[in-house]
Amino acid sequence: MAQARKSTSPRTGLTYADAGIDLDRYDAFIETLEGHVRRTFGPRVIRNPGGFAGLFRLDFNERLFKRNYRDPVLVACTDGVGTKIRLAQLLNIYDTIGIDLVAMNVNDLITNGAEPLFFLDYFAVRAVDKPMMTAVVKGIADGCTQAGCALIGGETAEMGDLYAPGDFDLAGFAVGVVELRRMIRPAMINPGDIVLGLASSGVHSNGYSLVRKVIEHARLDLRTTYADLDPERTLGRVLLTPTRIYADSIVRVLRKYAVKRVITGMAHITGGGLADNLVRALPASVDVVLDAGSWPIPPIFPFLQRRGGISNDEMARVFNMGIGYCVIVKPAFADSITAHLTRLGENVHVIGKIIKGRGKVRIESRKTSRPSRRSHA
Amino acid sequence: MAQARKSTSPRTGLTYADAGIDLDRYDAFIETLEGHVRRTFGPRVIRNPGGFAGLFRLDFNERLFKRNYRDPVLVACTDGVGTKIRLAQLLNIYDTIGIDLVAMNVNDLITNGAEPLFFLDYFAVRAVDKPMMTAVVKGIADGCTQAGCALIGGETAEMGDLYAPGDFDLAGFAVGVVELRRMIRPAMINPGDIVLGLASSGVHSNGYSLVRKVIEHARLDLRTTYADLDPERTLGRVLLTPTRIYADSIVRVLRKYAVKRVITGMAHITGGGLADNLVRALPASVDVVLDAGSWPIPPIFPFLQRRGGISNDEMARVFNMGIGYCVIVKPAFADSITAHLTRLGENVHVIGKIIKGRGKVRIESRKTSRPSRRSHA
Repeated sequence: MAQARKSTSPRTGLTYADAGIDLDRYDAFIETLEGHVRRTFGPRVIRNPGGFAGLFRLDFNERLFKRNYRDPVLVACTDGVGTKIRLAQLLNIYDTIGIDLVAMNVNDLITNGAEPLFFLDYFAVRAVDKPMMTAVVKGIADGCTQAGCALIGGETAEMGDLYAPGDFDLAGFAVGVVELRRMIRPAMINPGDIVLGLASSGVHSNGYSLVRKVIEHARLDLRTTYADLDPERTLGRVLLTPTRIYADSIVRVLRKYAVKRVITGMAHITGGGLADNLVRALPASVDVVLDAGSWPIPPIFPFLQRRGGISNDEMARVFNMGIGYCVIVKPAFADSITAHLTRLGENVHVIGKIIKGRGKVRIESRKTSRPSRRSHA
Repeated sequence: MAQARKSTSPRTGLTYADAGIDLDRYDAFIETLEGHVRRTFGPRVIRNPGGFAGLFRLDFNERLFKRNYRDPVLVACTDGVGTKIRLAQLLNIYDTIGIDLVAMNVNDLITNGAEPLFFLDYFAVRAVDKPMMTAVVKGIADGCTQAGCALIGGETAEMGDLYAPGDFDLAGFAVGVVELRRMIRPAMINPGDIVLGLASSGVHSNGYSLVRKVIEHARLDLRTTYADLDPERTLGRVLLTPTRIYADSIVRVLRKYAVKRVITGMAHITGGGLADNLVRALPASVDVVLDAGSWPIPPIFPFLQRRGGISNDEMARVFNMGIGYCVIVKPAFADSITAHLTRLGENVHVIGKIIKGRGKVRIESRKTSRPSRRSHA
C-alpha cells in the first residue's frame, strides 16, 4: 500500500527474545493484507513503501487528470460501523464488515457532491488474529473498489489492555474532492423539488443494538431461516448484508448533470432514520413531505418490528426502512435522473417533495404524520 | 465545527420515552465541544453545520492562498495513542491525550514535507461522560492549534457493548498537502548528509505497555514524586507529558529552505525507536551512523530502565530515548538549519551522519554497535 500498514504492538515483555521470529511472520501477514490493498490503487496513488504517510496526487499536470479542479474543496469524514461488529463476531463472518465501514464514510462524503479519492482505516484489536484481520481488510478493499477510492493507509493497533478476547473496533476516514462551484449545499433546494429515495440493502450499519435486543427478547436464532423473513438466508446472513455504497452511481450522475445542476441536495440515511437525516440537507426555508407508502419496506423491518413489539415511530427513528440514500432534484429532471440511476443499478422511488417551510421533515401516511426536529447546527 | 460532530448512540431501548430530554442535553454538550473546535478554524474551512462531512478549500482563487499548489500531493495518515489512554484513565487527567493524538498523526504527516491541513477524530466510548469527553476534545483542539490544522470533523461512537466502564479509544486522521516537486523522498538522501535530532518531550506515545509493566514490577506509584526522576512532578505527570508536535517548526523551516531543498529526509521516532524509524526514511544505498552519546537522555528513560531492569537494546527499541524527530540535511546547511530550528524553540543535536550503505541504521557507542533490520516495504 502507499503507506506501509503500520502496527502498534505494545505487547512488549521485559525481554524481547522471540521478537525476530514474530516479526518475520508478521511481515508475511502484512504482505497478504497489502495484496488486497494494492488492487484499490489508481494512477494517482504515489507508492511510499515503509513511509510514514499515504500519498495521493490531486490531479494536475497529467493528461488524464489535467486541471480537473480549478478551486478544489476537500471533503472529509470519519465513521465507524457501531455494534454491527458484534454481529460479525457472533457469526464469525468478517469479510463484509469492511464494506460497511467504507459505505458509512463514502455515503456521507458524496452528499456534498464530492468524488471519493482515498480511504484509511484504524483497526484496533486485542491481539493479532490473522484470518479475521485478513478478512476485514479484504472487505475494506472491496468497499474501496466499489466506491472508487484508494486505500492509502491504515493503522493496526494491538491493545490487549483495552479490548476483551475477540473484540475489535474499526474506524474509517474518507477524503474526497469537489469543485467549489459544483458543491451541493442546502441553499440550492427549492419548493417543488422532488425527493428520490434509493433502496437500501437492508439494515445497513445503524440500529444493531436494537436488533440485538429484539433477538434476545424474542429468542431468535441467527443461524435459523425464518419463513416470514427470507426462506433461503439465515437471519444472521440477512442482518449482515453489507451497507450499499452509492458512490459510483452518484458520482456518475453528478458528472452527467454537472452543468445543469439539477441535483439540489442529498442525504445519507443513517442513525435517526429518514427524517433526521433528510433534515440535515435542508435550508431553513423549506420542508420535506414524504409519502410513507411510496416505497417498499424490506421484510427485515416488519420482521424485527413484529418480534420486538416496536412502535412505528421507533422503527422510523432507528432504521432506514428501505431507503438508504436520498437525492433531491429539480422536478423537470426527476424522470431522467430516476432512469439514469436505475440504469446504474439503483432501485429508485419518488418518495416525497419539497414545499415551503421551516427546515422540517414530515412523513405522511394514511394514519399519522410526524414532524421531525431540525438537527442542531 | 465544519461538520457537526456526529454521534452514534446505539443505546436504544425498546421504547424511547425520554429521548427528547436527553437529546436537548446532548445538544448543549455538543455545543461546548464545538466551541473548542471552532478555534482551530482558518479561512480555508467552509462551514457545514449539520452536514455529513467536513469541507476544506485547498487553496485556489483567494488572494491569500492563490495558486499555492500547482501539482498538489495530498498526504494522509491515521494513528491512535495506544495504551497511553490507560495512563490518562488511571490519573483521571484527560486534557492532554488529545494533543498526543494530533502529534502522532501530524508528526508522521510532515515527514514527506507536507503542510498539515485538517484533522478528524474517532472517539469511541462506553457511554457519554461529558467532563472526560470535553477534556479530550479540548486537547485535540489544542493539538490542532499547535499543528496549524483545522479540526473539521469527528465521530463520537457510544458503544456500550464493546467497551468496559470508563474505557474509550481514540483514533486520529490527518491530511496535508505538499507540492509534488518539493516532496521529500528517500532518494534525496546522500552520503555526507547530517542527521539532526530534535528533542522529545519524554516518552511521547509509544511504549506505555512496557511502562505499565515497570510500574507494576517495581511497585511504583503514579502519584508520587521520585528524587531520581523529577523533584517537582509526580511520576504520573512526567509520563503523561504530551507528545511534542514538530509541525510548526518543520513547516517553517521547509518554507524558508523551499528553493534550496537542503532537507533531504525526515523521520518521526515512534514505536521501534530511532533505528527502526530512521530506516524508513532511507534509500537502499545509504546507512545512518548514530553517535549514541551525542544527545542528552531525559531522566525518565534511565529511571524506567533501572526500575524495570531493562536492557539497553530493549530501551532503544521501545522508546525514543530523547529524540522525537529527525531531520536529515545537506552538510553545508546543518549549522543554519540547527540555528533556525533552535530559534523556533526546538532543542537540536547533531546525532549522526549518512554514509554509503544498504539502508541500515547503526547506533555507535563506546560499548557496542547494533545494526537494525530494514523495514519491510
